[in-house]
Amino acid sequence: MTIQIALLGAGRIGKVHARAIAATPGVALAAVADAMPEAAEAISAAYGAPALSIDQIEADDSIAAVIICTPTPTHADLIERFVKAKKAVFCEKPIDLSVERVRACLDVVRAENGTLMLGFNRRFDPHFRAVRKAIDDGAIGDVEMVQIVSRDPAPPPPAYVMASGGIFRDMTIHDFDMARFLLGEEIDSVMASASSLVDPEIGKAGDYDSASIILTTASGRQCSISNSRRATFGYDQRIEVLGSLGSVAAENQRPVSIEIANAKGFQRPPLYDFFMTRYVEAYAAEIAAFAAALQDGVPASPGGDDGLKALVIAEAALKSVREGRRVAISEI
Amino acid sequence: MTIQIALLGAGRIGKVHARAIAATPGVALAAVADAMPEAAEAISAAYGAPALSIDQIEADDSIAAVIICTPTPTHADLIERFVKAKKAVFCEKPIDLSVERVRACLDVVRAENGTLMLGFNRRFDPHFRAVRKAIDDGAIGDVEMVQIVSRDPAPPPPAYVMASGGIFRDMTIHDFDMARFLLGEEIDSVMASASSLVDPEIGKAGDYDSASIILTTASGRQCSISNSRRATFGYDQRIEVLGSLGSVAAENQRPVSIEIANAKGFQRPPLYDFFMTRYVEAYAAEIAAFAAALQDGVPASPGGDDGLKALVIAEAALKSVREGRRVAISEI
Amino acid sequence: MTIQIALLGAGRIGKVHARAIAATPGVALAAVADAMPEAAEAISAAYGAPALSIDQIEADDSIAAVIICTPTPTHADLIERFVKAKKAVFCEKPIDLSVERVRACLDVVRAENGTLMLGFNRRFDPHFRAVRKAIDDGAIGDVEMVQIVSRDPAPPPPAYVMASGGIFRDMTIHDFDMARFLLGEEIDSVMASASSLVDPEIGKAGDYDSASIILTTASGRQCSISNSRRATFGYDQRIEVLGSLGSVAAENQRPVSIEIANAKGFQRPPLYDFFMTRYVEAYAAEIAAFAAALQDGVPASPGGDDGLKALVIAEAALKSVREGRRVAISEI
Amino acid sequence: MTIQIALLGAGRIGKVHARAIAATPGVALAAVADAMPEAAEAISAAYGAPALSIDQIEADDSIAAVIICTPTPTHADLIERFVKAKKAVFCEKPIDLSVERVRACLDVVRAENGTLMLGFNRRFDPHFRAVRKAIDDGAIGDVEMVQIVSRDPAPPPPAYVMASGGIFRDMTIHDFDMARFLLGEEIDSVMASASSLVDPEIGKAGDYDSASIILTTASGRQCSISNSRRATFGYDQRIEVLGSLGSVAAENQRPVSIEIANAKGFQRPPLYDFFMTRYVEAYAAEIAAFAAALQDGVPASPGGDDGLKALVIAEAALKSVREGRRVAISEI
Repeated sequence: MTIQIALLGAGRIGKVHARAIAATPGVALAAVADAMPEAAEAISAAYGAPALSIDQIEADDSIAAVIICTPTPTHADLIERFVKAKKAVFCEKPIDLSVERVRACLDVVRAENGTLMLGFNRRFDPHFRAVRKAIDDGAIGDVEMVQIVSRDPAPPPPAYVMASGGIFRDMTIHDFDMARFLLGEEIDSVMASASSLVDPEIGKAGDYDSASIILTTASGRQCSISNSRRATFGYDQRIEVLGSLGSVAAENQRPVSIEIANAKGFQRPPLYDFFMTRYVEAYAAEIAAFAAALQDGVPASPGGDDGLKALVIAEAALKSVREGRRVAISEI
Repeated sequence: MTIQIALLGAGRIGKVHARAIAATPGVALAAVADAMPEAAEAISAAYGAPALSIDQIEADDSIAAVIICTPTPTHADLIERFVKAKKAVFCEKPIDLSVERVRACLDVVRAENGTLMLGFNRRFDPHFRAVRKAIDDGAIGDVEMVQIVSRDPAPPPPAYVMASGGIFRDMTIHDFDMARFLLGEEIDSVMASASSLVDPEIGKAGDYDSASIILTTASGRQCSISNSRRATFGYDQRIEVLGSLGSVAAENQRPVSIEIANAKGFQRPPLYDFFMTRYVEAYAAEIAAFAAALQDGVPASPGGDDGLKALVIAEAALKSVREGRRVAISEI
Repeated sequence: MTIQIALLGAGRIGKVHARAIAATPGVALAAVADAMPEAAEAISAAYGAPALSIDQIEADDSIAAVIICTPTPTHADLIERFVKAKKAVFCEKPIDLSVERVRACLDVVRAENGTLMLGFNRRFDPHFRAVRKAIDDGAIGDVEMVQIVSRDPAPPPPAYVMASGGIFRDMTIHDFDMARFLLGEEIDSVMASASSLVDPEIGKAGDYDSASIILTTASGRQCSISNSRRATFGYDQRIEVLGSLGSVAAENQRPVSIEIANAKGFQRPPLYDFFMTRYVEAYAAEIAAFAAALQDGVPASPGGDDGLKALVIAEAALKSVREGRRVAISEI
Repeated sequence: MTIQIALLGAGRIGKVHARAIAATPGVALAAVADAMPEAAEAISAAYGAPALSIDQIEADDSIAAVIICTPTPTHADLIERFVKAKKAVFCEKPIDLSVERVRACLDVVRAENGTLMLGFNRRFDPHFRAVRKAIDDGAIGDVEMVQIVSRDPAPPPPAYVMASGGIFRDMTIHDFDMARFLLGEEIDSVMASASSLVDPEIGKAGDYDSASIILTTASGRQCSISNSRRATFGYDQRIEVLGSLGSVAAENQRPVSIEIANAKGFQRPPLYDFFMTRYVEAYAAEIAAFAAALQDGVPASPGGDDGLKALVIAEAALKSVREGRRVAISEI
């Protein structure tokens, strides 16, 4: 039976999810809601699903699940509201910028025995999945060290930075989740160094645009993360895992893979310049995974706890930068 | 206004085109016809378009265009029938295996002032288009030499080979079209060497599975094509163009681009193993180009003449293998 | 016991060999001869070997071997003279530009039971050797098709072209030898197409600067060679072998392998721009192989017959271009 | 005039330097000394330089310079002795494992106005030099972040580890020097995490085999270093620099660059498995640079201060691991 899914939030990422729902067998876009009627209407027109209010969606028993792509401050409330309404929830990260609020929200999800999947889309990238599969297959033996390079093409406007919770909660949080996905062991402590080298406005706003982080597990496994808010050559997204038997790496992806040679040398075009084009397959695959979990009645993953853990690492990283010391995860 | 397109032929490639039509703005799948009712029904169910007979489609004035993916021997008749019915036609290559029949068919198209686009999908591959664009942009100066490597992952069954018209008309024809697309000058003569190294059954059937071809233009530009019906590592599709100022190359594409390193060295996964996955973007782009031509009232390209020219080169190549000499295009 | 080797010809390639002799254990540079005294003196000063006349070298019984790097027209005479003098001979290719003269020379070598090694240096390139080793190890199964791309960075002066015997005897001859080295079967026939696209002076001199060649063996194995006298991006030297189980390829070599990325994309420096830098390891290794053959009393390879066979293929290629047909090796 | 250079220490690295001296124009190997007569004799026989005692070398006024490749505990004493003897000194790193002893040694060098060059060979690797040149040329704008991956193929024996001063003073010290070479600004503070994942014996000896380090400059530039004593796929040596306008990277080097493709995918051979083969060009270039400095009377670089600074960073890294905090360079 086709599972009816409603979309809350018809912005940039909402459109991506609407298309993914339309393309995924066994699920259908049942409705779309947005505070801005025109945004909801655009998706409604494109996919033939009615634009409804959140109240209407909540009350509609034929709708089995919602996808939350509204602004971050509304996430926790909406999650609580819809798990109480007995609907499965897929929510874009983060649940909230406050660890305390996230913990309270997850308490509600647990109390309601609700389904909550978090939008850590990179876990669904085919190349990163293949890295994980190589680890699971034993191709590199015991994981020892993970290297993550994660750089945005260009810095966001300062206003975005303010609202985002800062580089660790907004950007590195994806890398923290990826580290957990790959290390095979929980993070025990964090050391981080950060500065503002790209845009002085970001520094003035109290945030950083360049950061280096070392995560360590209890057994001594290490993960290095290198972040920058600027990479002129495109969206720089690489991971590499060293194990006892070898290593596995996922290189950058580019939209066009030609090479031009002339007297100056060999030139390849830049990388993808945007997370939506770089991760287009990942976005489709995460919605397919959510649909499959609903259809098969199995837990959706990554879940609320994964969101909490990544946020706690972000808090620890920030504390490490500020206090100039190794911060244990247990301190947060 | 949405252009209504009917699909003739609901096989493997028909499904690809049905999906492409559904995903292309401004066009809609109006109907599907197939000699096997179940095939037509499957597409009908998936996309909500009725399964009709070819007669019904021909008679339906609301249908502006047809996409022909029926078996090759029906192509020329269907093209003539539908241009006479004043519908635009997109036809899978080849128009026919006989040069004479193709010429007759194109006479009808011209007499009817009809629209005919040929399914040389590789012209729409984003990487090959980027190669062409680099040439057009002057990045490599005057084109001098083109290298095409084109190898299937595994040989087709001998029965297919018999019906296909042989390696030059079936497989290399794509490379002949690509050579014309890149050389910027018509082919003047052909030299070819071919043998059966992969599957003796192919040789017994009078065909070849391994071929090397040199195309030459009047000004002396050369194109080398290397074909094999077997490449254990996947669908090997590369082009490279040398010009007076430099070169441009499109490398192979692979579904997953990780690299595993261990004591034996560095290992990357195989290439795509199938033309439909390798050229998925190209198939979508060619249907979008057909739709755009209809919407804008401009000629659809590649057209019937491109199909004829590639077939003539194939004839010349076959003659060259058999007669052991350079064969002028003008001989065919 | 150290083997004393004399150098005949102190030009560009003579210097390379002098250095190689000095660096090879078990051999010593005994003397150097050149028609231009300053050239001989320069090598003499650098390596402490006396500058002698050819007569003196011939008469010196302590000298066991000579390396001939004099101009091509002197090669055959010197080979004959020194095998008669019971000295082992290493000679730069070609033995002569005339097939007849080469045959006569090899008759003398055979009659004298002499040792003659030909300077097909590319057989000693570590990357190409590794390709051959992969074939010998069975890594790709039965060899089916070989692709050779061989392009000079820039065309030679027309005067050189005249004296060189033309592109096939001068440049492609290396590729013909490489084809034999890799195919595992003698060449049976040749098809070739050639033109002058790079430098009109070369065309006026009756030679070509751009050529495409197909070599075929009796069992149907094929080798495609693509030559140009110009590659703005450096000395383009690639080989690739397709077999029944897979393929093996040797990519281009470059002196510096960094990559610079910026908003325009990813840029790597050009290739080596000269055969002496590209093949520096190969030149050393071929002299080491000559020394080892002398020390161990085993035949030196590649030998005179390899030189003859490559030259015959060159003749056949030229005939094929001129007559526009497949030319059998047996015709030459 | 040829500069006479004596070699102190005829071990593994001594042989490398002897060969480099022999190959460098304008310098000559004047003598070799080693506590083990056979070692000295071997080099003496190969290059025709007498085996002398250290006293004899010190007393020989014709000898202008010495290269010190004796065991580490003798370095500082020999440096002092030979600068007092008015000879130029090239010394393998480190000067000493004690920061205090190094400072005292450098005081002597300064007091004697001596010449001291340190063997940070990687500064002379052509690929890393090209990275530095790209920075100097402005190709990537202002340097922001440096990534260094530096992994040994296999762990050393525990006995070596004990004597070496530990991973930071022995192995990472090269990376600390490289960081200084590339960052364009002195290191201000260090954060490090280290563990023993590869060989428990190394952990028992109180050392680490896996380390992640973040170096920070006063302006906020960051360098991440990832070390492991094991990389099954070879000697893993990569650097990458991100700047305001782009990035520049030097990839791994490998002795043979072929690729074999089969049904399992595409396979390239392992990297160099040893620092002497990987850095063969660098060893030759550093001796050439030392010779050039002597000939031209210019300061030799990197000098004693570079050795001291790298050692101080190593001390700070060790302190950071032990105290779990950011350690300022000024603390050491």
